[in-house]
Amino acid sequence: MARVVVDVMLKPEILDPQGRAIAQKLPQLGFDGVTAVRQGKRFEVEIDGEADEAALDRVRKIAETMLANPVIETFDVRVL
Amino acid sequence: MARVVVDVMLKPEILDPQGRAIAQKLPQLGFDGVTAVRQGKRFEVEIDGEADEAALDRVRKIAETMLANPVIETFDVRVL
Repeated sequence: MARVVVDVMLKPEILDPQGRAIAQKLPQLGFDGVTAVRQGKRFEVEIDGEADEAALDRVRKIAETMLANPVIETFDVRVL
Repeated sequence: MARVVVDVMLKPEILDPQGRAIAQKLPQLGFDGVTAVRQGKRFEVEIDGEADEAALDRVRKIAETMLANPVIETFDVRVL
């Protein structure tokens, strides 16, 4: 059994209102020095067997199909 | 300027219906071999200056205050 992480973030050119809302609120809470926040998703995928290249390819297909929207998001797959 | 990542995941003992829904759907889409999926959040926080220990401490306080709910979630802060 292995655990694979899939990070999904909006593409840089796509507006991220959630992240922007957080960044704007921080100074009011006394947190200075943050210039931007982007919010994305993180998935931990537990797979049978080893996280070899074939397994990672399968997880990439899963990410493309279900976890990310490739039109507006990018994703990154790595072994935990 | 530095970029710091905050990963936020539900604690292992907290039920994750979104992750479970994804895991249950995968076999119907032809993806076998996935035993579990957990869904969390990933934040990219851009800060002024260097990501030294003081800056990371500040980001940890931000994570505790705004990005995670420490009752049901854990978070991890690291430099990108």
